[in-house]
Amino acid sequence: MADRVIEELDRDESLRLISSGGIGRIAYTSRYGPTVLPVNYTFYEGAILFRTAEHGPLDEDLRTGIAGADYEVAFEIDDIDMSGEMGWSVLVQGPAHHVTGPEREEAFRACAEPWAPGNRELLVQIVPSRITGRRINHS
Amino acid sequence: MADRVIEELDRDESLRLISSGGIGRIAYTSRYGPTVLPVNYTFYEGAILFRTAEHGPLDEDLRTGIAGADYEVAFEIDDIDMSGEMGWSVLVQGPAHHVTGPEREEAFRACAEPWAPGNRELLVQIVPSRITGRRINHS
Repeated sequence: MADRVIEELDRDESLRLISSGGIGRIAYTSRYGPTVLPVNYTFYEGAILFRTAEHGPLDEDLRTGIAGADYEVAFEIDDIDMSGEMGWSVLVQGPAHHVTGPEREEAFRACAEPWAPGNRELLVQIVPSRITGRRINHS
Repeated sequence: MADRVIEELDRDESLRLISSGGIGRIAYTSRYGPTVLPVNYTFYEGAILFRTAEHGPLDEDLRTGIAGADYEVAFEIDDIDMSGEMGWSVLVQGPAHHVTGPEREEAFRACAEPWAPGNRELLVQIVPSRITGRRINHS
C-alpha cells in the first residue's frame, strides 16, 4: 500500500466532519462484553445526541445505577469509499448521559428521529472528553 | 416511524451477510476506555480476519500479557442506505487471537490487504462466540 498516506485529524477537523450528523456507531461494555450498534445521531451543542428505547437493552446497559454517574462509551463516525479504498473515521470518547430536566425538550426537538420503530423516548448525550480522527488517502 | 419494521437476523443469515468481507469496526477496551476503529476484514474459516501493525496501538491494546489468553472484542458490520433510511447490522462478539504458527501463512494469503500504509504484518482473528443481527426495513 505504498501509494496510501494516513493523516491524523485534529479536534477541529474531526468536529467539522461529524457535525452534520447521520449514522454513527456506539460502543460500550454490555452484559455480553464489548458491543457496537449503529444509531442515527445529531451533533448538538458540542455533543453527540441520539434516541433509544427506555428500558431497552441499550438503556439498561448504559445505566450505572448510581445517580449522577455516567458510563464511558465510544462513538465512531466514518465515511468510507470502498471502490477508492480511502476514507476518514472519527472516534469520540466520553460519558453517556441521559438527558432529563428542563434542557430535554429543546434537545429532543433537535435530535434526529430514530429509524427503528417503537417508542424511543430516551435521549442519550455523549459529551466528548477525547476526539481523535484519521484519514487514509492516496498520496 | 410507523412504517418501519425491525427484524432480528439469525446466525445463518448474519453469517451470509458478512461473509463477503469489506469494512467492519472493531471495538475493544483500550487504555482510553471503549474504542472503535474501522478495518478492512476477510471472513475466513468461520472467523473475522484482519491485519494490523505489530506493536501498534491496536496490537498493544489487544495483548493480555498472558500466553494463550485472548481479549474479548466486538466486531460490527453493517450496510446502511442513508436515503432509504434502512439497513442491516451484524455484531460478532468473541476473543481476538493473534494468528501465529503453521496456520498463519495460508490465513495471511487469504486476508484482505489493509488500506493503511506501513508494515501491518500482525494477523488478528476473531472467532465468533456470539453473532446477532438486525435489519430495519419499510413495512
